[in-house]
Amino acid sequence: MEKSATTANAARKTLEEEALDLLFMKARTHNGWQDRPVPEALLRRAVEIAKMGPTSANTSPMRLVFVRSKEGKERLRPALSPGNLEKTMAAPVTAIVAYDLEFYELLPRLFPHAPDARSWFAGKEAAIAETAFRNGTLQGAYLIIALRALGLDCGPMSGFDKAIVDAAFFAGTTVRANFLMNIGYGDPAKLFARSPRLDFTEIAQFA
Amino acid sequence: MEKSATTANAARKTLEEEALDLLFMKARTHNGWQDRPVPEALLRRAVEIAKMGPTSANTSPMRLVFVRSKEGKERLRPALSPGNLEKTMAAPVTAIVAYDLEFYELLPRLFPHAPDARSWFAGKEAAIAETAFRNGTLQGAYLIIALRALGLDCGPMSGFDKAIVDAAFFAGTTVRANFLMNIGYGDPAKLFARSPRLDFTEIAQFA
Repeated sequence: MEKSATTANAARKTLEEEALDLLFMKARTHNGWQDRPVPEALLRRAVEIAKMGPTSANTSPMRLVFVRSKEGKERLRPALSPGNLEKTMAAPVTAIVAYDLEFYELLPRLFPHAPDARSWFAGKEAAIAETAFRNGTLQGAYLIIALRALGLDCGPMSGFDKAIVDAAFFAGTTVRANFLMNIGYGDPAKLFARSPRLDFTEIAQFA
Repeated sequence: MEKSATTANAARKTLEEEALDLLFMKARTHNGWQDRPVPEALLRRAVEIAKMGPTSANTSPMRLVFVRSKEGKERLRPALSPGNLEKTMAAPVTAIVAYDLEFYELLPRLFPHAPDARSWFAGKEAAIAETAFRNGTLQGAYLIIALRALGLDCGPMSGFDKAIVDAAFFAGTTVRANFLMNIGYGDPAKLFARSPRLDFTEIAQFA
């Protein structure tokens, strides 16, 4: 950590370059995995970190299945697109990043500021779907960063058959798959060349 | 940064506790803002960091408007919900986090591994909308973390009228608003009490 002190009363902690490298600048999406197990304690810690990130009205809709058993991987297999099959079967862990469409039932507990928060969503299908998808996805990104912060690599994927995953893992529930993410210690030899990014002016403007 | 060396050949950098506090554990969504400007260089740097986070096929659909002029704020005003109005008008910067529904036109450049990537989306409205929303939202989360890493505070919001924002800022384009985010140096006196989070077992399971 570095401290930047542009004014006396406004010293602000900031992340050092090496930490930014770990999380963003040098982190890569991995396709191949070392034969090295992922400690369950790290997965638990990553969830405890990611859940602290902000969501709208603290809706916190993300739900996760960490698939790591042979039997669990076989249930995933028919849902995987050909390009994602081999690496996913080989990954120590594949997380199903999902969201619960009934997240609003928990709002009396999760958002005590607003006793009527449940009524903002109950019966409003479009608002439910959009809120679950947006906030479940924000939380999925927090999880990616949290895993990297703990020294793990990940490989998120959206190339899979959601209906098959939902039927295999979430039948009879209001939970729906969002994306998949392989987790482990990546094999640098199997990285693709890094793809280019847009320039600042193509992304952002000032108004 | 700390190094954890559980095995000789597998030393992995990890984030230290203070950095996790800055990004997640002690970071808060802010509602009040100090009278302290946000250097443009920090906004530019945050974009350069956030754009390195992973998106599906490097689609990178996020687009941003950093609203900081009086005139820009006035264009935003009619779109804001009552609960978000005052704090947004007072924030040094309000980012419109948006996505471009024509992101796929850039894929020949952004995803050179797959020369046919454009055809995965062109003309496929549902795939376009879902991919833009999911990946634009992942990038929005990366931006939140990047801003915090640079010592800034933020206050993301989804309580606003998207149609008004789209008409005021994105008329005649394929860009659509996703969420708003106030950016500045937060006033700790205006924080709400932190809302509770779900327990691990309510979020995640193993399979």
